[in-house]
This record gives sequence, structure tokens and C-alpha cells, in this order.
Amino acid sequence: MKRYKVIFQPAGRRGEIEEGKTLLEAAQALGVDIEAVCGGKKVCGKCKVRIEEGYFEKDNIDSGMKHLSPITEDELKHIKPEDGPNIRLACSAEIRGEVKVFVPERSRAGKQVVRKAARELNIGLEPAVKKYNIELKEPTLHEMTTGDVERVLRFMADTYGLRDLTFDYTALRDLQDTLRRGGWKATVTVWMDREIIKVEPEFVDPLYGLAVDIGTTTVVGYLCDLNTGRVINTESMMNPQVPYGEDVMSRITYAMTHPDGLEKMQRAIIDGLNEIIKNITADLRTNGRDGGSAIVDMTVVFNTAMHHIFLGLNPEYIGRSPFIPGVQDPLDIKARDLGIHIAPGAYVHILPIEAGFVGADNVGVLIAEEPYNQDEIMLIIDIGTNGELLLGNRQRICSTSCATGPAFEGAQIKFGMRAAPGAIEKVRIDPETKECYYKVIGKADWHTHLQEVNAKGICGSGIIDAVAEMFKAGIIDRTGKFVKGIESPRVRLGSDGKPEYVLAWAEETSIGTDITITQADVRALQLAKAALYAGAKLLMKRMGLKGIDRVVLAGAFGSYIDRESALTLGMFPDCPVDRVYAVGNAAGDGARMALLNVDKRREARERARWVEFVEIAVEPDFEKEFMQAMHIPHMKDPFPNLKTLLKERNVPVEVKG
Amino acid sequence: MKRYKVIFQPAGRRGEIEEGKTLLEAAQALGVDIEAVCGGKKVCGKCKVRIEEGYFEKDNIDSGMKHLSPITEDELKHIKPEDGPNIRLACSAEIRGEVKVFVPERSRAGKQVVRKAARELNIGLEPAVKKYNIELKEPTLHEMTTGDVERVLRFMADTYGLRDLTFDYTALRDLQDTLRRGGWKATVTVWMDREIIKVEPEFVDPLYGLAVDIGTTTVVGYLCDLNTGRVINTESMMNPQVPYGEDVMSRITYAMTHPDGLEKMQRAIIDGLNEIIKNITADLRTNGRDGGSAIVDMTVVFNTAMHHIFLGLNPEYIGRSPFIPGVQDPLDIKARDLGIHIAPGAYVHILPIEAGFVGADNVGVLIAEEPYNQDEIMLIIDIGTNGELLLGNRQRICSTSCATGPAFEGAQIKFGMRAAPGAIEKVRIDPETKECYYKVIGKADWHTHLQEVNAKGICGSGIIDAVAEMFKAGIIDRTGKFVKGIESPRVRLGSDGKPEYVLAWAEETSIGTDITITQADVRALQLAKAALYAGAKLLMKRMGLKGIDRVVLAGAFGSYIDRESALTLGMFPDCPVDRVYAVGNAAGDGARMALLNVDKRREARERARWVEFVEIAVEPDFEKEFMQAMHIPHMKDPFPNLKTLLKERNVPVEVKG
Repeated sequence: MKRYKVIFQPAGRRGEIEEGKTLLEAAQALGVDIEAVCGGKKVCGKCKVRIEEGYFEKDNIDSGMKHLSPITEDELKHIKPEDGPNIRLACSAEIRGEVKVFVPERSRAGKQVVRKAARELNIGLEPAVKKYNIELKEPTLHEMTTGDVERVLRFMADTYGLRDLTFDYTALRDLQDTLRRGGWKATVTVWMDREIIKVEPEFVDPLYGLAVDIGTTTVVGYLCDLNTGRVINTESMMNPQVPYGEDVMSRITYAMTHPDGLEKMQRAIIDGLNEIIKNITADLRTNGRDGGSAIVDMTVVFNTAMHHIFLGLNPEYIGRSPFIPGVQDPLDIKARDLGIHIAPGAYVHILPIEAGFVGADNVGVLIAEEPYNQDEIMLIIDIGTNGELLLGNRQRICSTSCATGPAFEGAQIKFGMRAAPGAIEKVRIDPETKECYYKVIGKADWHTHLQEVNAKGICGSGIIDAVAEMFKAGIIDRTGKFVKGIESPRVRLGSDGKPEYVLAWAEETSIGTDITITQADVRALQLAKAALYAGAKLLMKRMGLKGIDRVVLAGAFGSYIDRESALTLGMFPDCPVDRVYAVGNAAGDGARMALLNVDKRREARERARWVEFVEIAVEPDFEKEFMQAMHIPHMKDPFPNLKTLLKERNVPVEVKG
Repeated sequence: MKRYKVIFQPAGRRGEIEEGKTLLEAAQALGVDIEAVCGGKKVCGKCKVRIEEGYFEKDNIDSGMKHLSPITEDELKHIKPEDGPNIRLACSAEIRGEVKVFVPERSRAGKQVVRKAARELNIGLEPAVKKYNIELKEPTLHEMTTGDVERVLRFMADTYGLRDLTFDYTALRDLQDTLRRGGWKATVTVWMDREIIKVEPEFVDPLYGLAVDIGTTTVVGYLCDLNTGRVINTESMMNPQVPYGEDVMSRITYAMTHPDGLEKMQRAIIDGLNEIIKNITADLRTNGRDGGSAIVDMTVVFNTAMHHIFLGLNPEYIGRSPFIPGVQDPLDIKARDLGIHIAPGAYVHILPIEAGFVGADNVGVLIAEEPYNQDEIMLIIDIGTNGELLLGNRQRICSTSCATGPAFEGAQIKFGMRAAPGAIEKVRIDPETKECYYKVIGKADWHTHLQEVNAKGICGSGIIDAVAEMFKAGIIDRTGKFVKGIESPRVRLGSDGKPEYVLAWAEETSIGTDITITQADVRALQLAKAALYAGAKLLMKRMGLKGIDRVVLAGAFGSYIDRESALTLGMFPDCPVDRVYAVGNAAGDGARMALLNVDKRREARERARWVEFVEIAVEPDFEKEFMQAMHIPHMKDPFPNLKTLLKERNVPVEVKG
């Protein structure tokens, strides 16, 4: 039976699929979630996918379409003009050649694995918005006539001491009917003790805010109860800008090369946010009213490029020297001016950015971790699609941005994939036999050769583990080159004539082919880790620091990498392994803190300016440091007690052999 | 030949037109301006009109359509779906029965006679918006990177001492490209020393603002040069809300009885304003950019109902007791929030209103005339579709609103029409012969029986003149009743069996019928003038005033009425005739003053609250005063030297036969 390569975007999963299988079957085999309510019976029409231009042979859309069975009458019934061009039902299109398929957000069934759950924050509540109950006397003809607005303002001044309040236009527009509907009882939402942004009939207590972390790849929203500080609901999605470019630079390029590129990408992220808002407030919907309007405050963090595109600012100038951002300071923008469907009078608070490449997300990390309140020297590493570093203590903090590339996210790696079910996330290699054990996302146990696990690829933490283990097992040397003459079926020459290591045999996978780590993969990882290491070293030099007391790994990815593997590889300067810890999505934590407490906004504004940004690419030692950092440090004990370790982790070591 | 009644809206003109004439010919005969670039050759398609539902016989649209020749193929070529239903070309539709026709704004050729020209104002310039030139150093990689926004703000603080400025979101969005396009030279427009609302490349001087007076019937815009204070251009149009109701109360009713009534009317006035903005800035358009964006400030005055509808506030509550407005204080609303096409960062300043029925237009009159800076007791009468009164001096000023009805505007009068070409605007009657002379708008000379003048109706000032003259000539008595037994062909019984006076014989008119003043017309005028008079009297009583030093007639109408006729009729309490004067569109003057000088805005805010609003309808004496005011005061010399007067006015008195 013939097999063809099939790629699914934006998940980035691929595999060789038998001719005649449907795209839905292919997606299921590759772990791509496509909604199919009817179970593939061709009746629900939910599994719409877009056929992208040919991927492998640069064939155009037409020939791409020929790689699928012709469109059927049944499909045509479900496809509407607003779906756009080249739409097929995944359940109906059969594979007849290589295809690249894009799965629109609305057709995605499950969530990708978003490792951005919210941790408990220990922070006092002082939100920017507050609710006040008011109760007015019904006006009569014989009292001096006064407008409804003036009556509300007088009550607020007399009862709550809030003078000089202004009225948002949209709040004012509904005021008359609202007051009368509530029998002259109402609830007024005030922003920053300055402006009335919403008026609701009768007395209403709940007070909701939304903290948003817009990553290059993933967007997460945290719906918070501003009365308790608790996260009520979390929603996430793939950043809908992914089709315009996988990384920051390709999106900047897209904006520069397409006249409406910026507008399209801004529209995409705003629409995406509105989708999140709709879903996250589904339970708040009452009386047929849009649940989003219950949200009266919002904070957002993102990197500088996402920040600019979100605001509709031309990202061109942050993409080239001298890397000048449009705006650095925090902003408060009316939600309606951005087209965001929360309460129309509400503001969106944009956290400040530090410099051209160190964004509001890093400021989020900064206010969440507060290195400026510590005596110890902290190195905070936030690894997303880019790597950002913060180094210092209460005396001084420097920051920089490292061009790690997307290797840590599984991109540019032959079998790399995002952290999603089926991805190999942890690896151990026996230095004697060169055999390996691995763990796959979605499975509880470690894998041995006897089990069927349907591995589909390898994600960032798995790659770090694999390369560190390959070094410790003597498969690669400290320059990253494969050691010659190793006798193991797992070490072989790949189709490119270069050595590779087989992590999983074809029969253990669902993609029908061996999953390997190639020489090129090792190089890509070395480049990424060298960028981080050199960045940290140059910051230390600049600040005259000899050592680091603590390393904080921020970002979802940081929570999943193995600290020992990271130290083995030399991702960051030496530090006792028990002083390395992960804090999860600290950028999102910062966004939540700014939502819950206005003092944190002030702190963010001040500290964003106080932190010294260092453009390491222009440091004279940059190249030298970078080249040195490519090496893998020699560990004293390259393989500390493997068997005990595996046992601890519930790996059936005895079975081996 | 059969003749049919034809009515044109919104002009309100009507006449009997021969069967077979086209609507364009009918319009021309009745003095209604319809654009017909091709001269009626059926090729330009400019003369589109909408056939309204039947007017006389309550017939529906279908039967209304049967009162015209069938639609032709030629017409169908020009009519597009966006024109809406029931559209015909006036040049092609022939009259076969009674019809009511609406002439859309875009099909109107000429302007109606807008008596709202701007007078010179003597006022210092202190506009709310100012322009500042800035020149930044081009940023380099080696200086501390700073955002464009922060660089502009630092320059404004260092150079102009303007600290704590904020940036409007739309101004911020374009900043980066603007700075670079201008080679780091730019012009910044600042509102109220607080907010940057616009940034233009290079150095730009011109500074434009728009003052708008939204009347129930007419909308006027004055484009002002804020560097000189001069009016550069004036544009006016019929208020596009007229189709929803001719007067304030009918529009309030429309809003209450139609679910989308308020929204439709708000849309109509905003669209109308955008039309005015487009036309008034036609000469400012440069580089294909929308001229409207050159306008960086705007002030608006209107009555309370127009104010509410403009803002999208429910007007229901100002239409019924206790007449509570939604908001009284002045407002500054972003133009974009209202959908107004001036600079998107600009504010629209809404002048404050005084009370439920005394609107921002009256506040405009107040700050233009400044009675609060006078020792003399002033009575300011602003007659629009409603009548508003201000009475007092620097000690105290009271205001009220009088339900005059629309008689002063020519409505509810048998041959009444708006002030437009063909309207009889001045009348003199010889007390001996009862013969009359009149002047028609659009003709330079007074009419005598020997001339052809094509009179079409009688406008407000003509009605006042006619009734005053009828009284002075002894045709009606001081109760307003026709005196019995007068021997004159002009005094006769009308078709309703009640007496009437013939002002113009059919052959002098273009409507083919005698123009008369009926007993009912006299009554309507008495009611209107009694409302005004009683209002003034009750204010005087309330304030303990015995007399008035000056009477100021504000409003376009006030400029055209004959002061002696007004005194004869007793439109307002006695005052020496030379202390009665007209000031034109004082409401519009006030809007312009607020545009040119922020002190006037402060004055408006303070004085609007300081003026005491008196609800005269609830005064115990109201009914009694009103009944007394119905009478026409007895004049000592009812006919002072007519011949000299006529000679002075160039009327050929000798010819009279």
C-alpha cells in the first residue's frame, strides 16, 4: 500500500499515511484533534479543514487538491462561501498524494496541552475597578430638575466621597433606562476612582476581570473574580496569527510585505480574544446578555511584537536596528477602541515593555518574581519562542533577549512537535547498552520497548533530555558530534548520510517511521542553548558578577524541562541543582497580579524603566562567548545512578534486554 | 384639465398641479429645488425622489404609486437597491392623482434659504486645541532605547512645559510612521493641555474647528479657522430627522413607538453631519486624504430633544413629567465614539443644557448675549420650533420654554410654508380700502396687484405681519375674531363657512388658488404668541419685575419679524420699539464662541447651572395669564402714517386703485 506525507497545521504534526485513508483518519493517527461530532458519518459538517498550498514539492493549490479525492455533493452541502477557499470535510477527503492541511480553530475538537495553568497568588486585592451601590430618590416635578448623570455624580460624592468622576459615554447612554429599570437602585462600576465605566440596575456584587497572556504560539486568558482574587476559569487557544508566521520575525516580515498584513493579524488576535472571552464567560451569561460584558477590567502581557500587532502599531521598527518600539509605557485603552467584547466602557491595561525585544510578558515575570526585592542574585529565564533573561537583585537588574530560535518548542527539529499528546517529553539512555526509555505526553508510565505507546514526535523538553542523555551515554561528544564506532542498532547513518540516534522504532509510533535525533537536531539545540548561555554570561560580565545564587525557569516550557539535563547541556551558567526551580507561567501571573492590584501596575511601570536593557548582540565579546557556549560541559559524574533514578520514576528497568 | 394636490417633503410645499405634468415640473412650479443636471432629459438620474404614503386619503404606498405613471425602463436603469423603496425619477413620473413626495438631501439642488449666516464675533482666541511643532533626534542603537511615544512626551515636557500628557490611541497608532515620514519633524495637536489627539508629519499650521447648531428643522455647520477665529465656510441642510417627525414631540413619540426609532434618528443626524463635514471641508482635502480629519475640535448646540437623540439617549423622559434629562452638564466625547468623521482622536464638546426643555442652544444664546454681564433687564426670546425665554440681568436670570407650536414657522397655517423662495414674508394692509401689499422671498420689491410674483404661501414673519395688519386695519378685533360687515372683496367666507382674508389672488400665485388668512390661522397665531407672552409675564411676576429694558430676538426667525407687528400683536411685554433688536443665530454664535475660547465653555457650564429654570406650566397663574395673552393689545395709533412708511420701503403707493 502506498503511503503519503501529510502535514497538519497549525499543530505542525506530520506522518506517512496510507493512500485512501481520510484526512480525519490521518488526523486521528497523528494526534491532531479535529471536531467530528457525527463520528465521521459525513453529516455534522464540523470537520472543515483548509487545504494549503503544496508543502513538499512546491505544487500549487490546484495540484494539492488533486492529491485528494474529488469533492462530493455531500461535502458541498456543508461548505459555505464564508468558509473561504479550498475547504474540505476531513471525513470525506481521501488521501491520494502529499498534502498540507490547515485545521481552523473552530474545527479543533480538544485543546492543545496548554501548560499554563494558574498558580495561587499571594497578593492583596486592590483592583483598578470597584463597584458601588447607589440608591436615588425618584425625581419629582417640584424639585429643581437635574439630569440623571448629575444625580448619580452627586450621590457618589456625598456617599462615597468620590468627586470629579467622569462618565464613560457608553455608560451614560444607558443610564436613564438602567436607573428606572432598577427602581432607582443601581450599581456603578468605577475605574481608578476616576471614571464611571458601567451602570447596572439594582445591586450587583460580582466583579470580573480578565488577565491575558498572548504568546507567539499560545494565547491564555484567566477569568478572575476581583472580589476574591481567584481564577474562575481558564481558556486558551493557538495564537490565531500562527498562519501568518510561526515566529515573531516571520510575522514582522508578513506585516512589512503585505499591505493589509498588520490589519489582518490584529484582526486575528482580537477575534481570537473575543472567542476566548465568549467561552470563558459562558457560565456568566444571564438573561440572554453577552457574558463578556460582565468583565470590567483586563490586563494583557505579550512580547513586543505581539504587543505592537495587537495595538495595530507597525512592528517594522522593532524588527530592525535601532529596535525602537512605538511605545514602552503602560497604556489604558478603551476595550471598544480595540474591538474587544468586554464591557464597552472598560479599559484594557497594557503592561509596559522594557525595550525593543523585552516585552510586557517579561515585565509580568519581573513583577511576579520580584528579583528587585531580593538580596540573592537571581537569573530568571523565560523561554517561549524567544528567550528572555533577567539577572540581578535589589541593587541592579539587567535584561536581555536571546535569539534562541524555536528549537526549544520542537520546531526546526526533524521529528519535533509541540507539547501535545503523543510527544516524547522525557528520555533516559542506558550508557552501556545505548538503549532508551521515554515518556509520552498523555501516558502515565515510562515506555519500554514492549509497550505500544503511539509516539508521534518529540517536544522541547524531550529534545533537551535526549541530547543531554546522548552526551552522558557517550553517543555525542562535547562538541555535539556523534562519536564514531558505537556498536548499537540505535546509532546509524540517516538518509542524509549523517549519523542519527533512534529514539523510537517505527512500530512504537503512530507515524509509521522511526523517530530519530539527527546530527542537525543536536546542532539546532546547541545553537539555542548557546544563545541562552552566552546571554547570561555576557550579562554577568557586564554586571561584574562571578556567580548566580538562583535560577528561575519561567514559562510553561521551563516547568517541564529536566533541571539536570539542562545543567548537563549548559543551558545556563552553573548553579546548584536544588537552586534551580520552575515557576510556571510567571508572565501570566504578572498579568493577574496587575489585574488584582493597581500597586503592581505602578511597580511594573517603575521597574520596567529601572531594569537596564542590554543589547547583547552588540557586545564585543558576543561571538566568542557564543562559540564557547556551543560546547557541552563535561560533567564529573555523567550518569549518576541511573537504575535508582529509573526505579524512582516507576520505569521497569528489569525488563530490559 | 384635471389638477391634483402634490406635496413635497421635507420642504412642506404643496400645490394643485395639472394631470400629466412630471414631478420635476411640479417641483419647479412650487419652488422645490430638485437637482436635474440634464435638464429633465432623463439621462442624469440625479432627480430621484421617494413616493411617500398617500397624504390626503390615507391611501397606502401602492395606491400612491398608482397616482403616477408606471415606472419606465429608463428609470429602472438609474435606480439602485441602496436607494431604498418607492424611488422614482422626478423627470419621468407623471402626475395622475394626489401624491406626497419626499426629496432626499442628495437630490436637492439648491440650499433652502438658511437665515443663519455667521456674524463677526468679538472674542479672544483660546481654543481647546493647540498645535505644537516638534523635532526629535533620530534614534541610534547606542543611546538608551526609548519608545517613540516617550520621546515625543519628553520633548513636549522639555520644550513646551506640557507634562503628564496622555496619547489618544488613534494618534499613537500612527505615530511611528508619521515621525519617520516627516524626517523626525512633526506637529502635535494637544487638547486642553492634557491629551495628544493627533500627530502630523512635518510642520503644519492650519487649525480647524467646527461649530454646529442642530435645530429641529435645520442643521448648520460653521467651519472656523482657530488661528484667526474666522468662519471659513458655512454649510447647512434640512435636519435629516424631519421624515421621522416635523417637531420635537413627534420625534420623541417616534423613538418611543419604534424599537429602533432612536437608533435610526441618531444615525440620520450623524450621517447628515458627516455630509456637512464632507462638503464644508471639500477645499481642505489634500493628498487624497479625507478633509474632515483636518477638523480637530467641534462644539454642538441643540435643544434637549435633539441633544438626547444625537447622543443616543432615550428622549422619552424629557417628554413627560417630571421632564428629567439624561445629562445636563457639558460633555466631551470622542468623535469616533459618535461616528463623526473629523480627526478620530478629536473630541466633540456638547454644551450643557439648562433643564428638560431648555437646551444647549439656549445656553449658546446665553453665552453669546451675556445678559449676566448687564445691568439692564433683558428679555431674550429664541424662537425656533419652540420658544425659549431668558429674563434678567447680572443679579438673576430665569429661563423657561414656551409651547408656541410651529405656527411661527408656517406650519399649522392653511397656506403656511417655510421661509423659502415664493413665501410672502411681509404684509401691509390699507385700513381704508382693506387692500394689501406684500413682499415675497426671492423678489426685491414689494408686490402690488399689477405685478406677477408667483407667491406660493406665507411664512412665519408674513403671518405675524398679516395678522397685525388685519388688526390695525380693523378686519379682526382684539379677541382675534373677524369683524362683521366689512365691505371688501378680500374679506369673505371660506369653504369652511368661516371668514377669511385674501392675501393674494389666484392669478398672483403659482399654486393656482387664492392665498388666504383664515379665522383658524389667526387663532393658531394667537395661541403661539400667547404662549410667549404669558411665559414672559410669568417670569416677570416670579422675579418681581415691573418692566423690561431690552428685548433681544434671537434665532433666524427673530431677524425677520417686524418689530412693530410683534409689538402690535403683543408677542412680548411692552418695550420701546427701538430697544427691540434681533441678533440672528445667537445659538450658533454661542457654539462658535465655545469653539474659539475655552473660557466660554467654563462660562457655559457655570451659567447653565446658575440660570433658574421655571416650569411655567405648573405656575398657578398660568392659565389666567395665557387666556389674557390671547388678546391683541389695543394700540394708541393703530396705523401710524402708512403712506410715509410704504414710501420709505419703496412701495408704489400711488398706483393703488
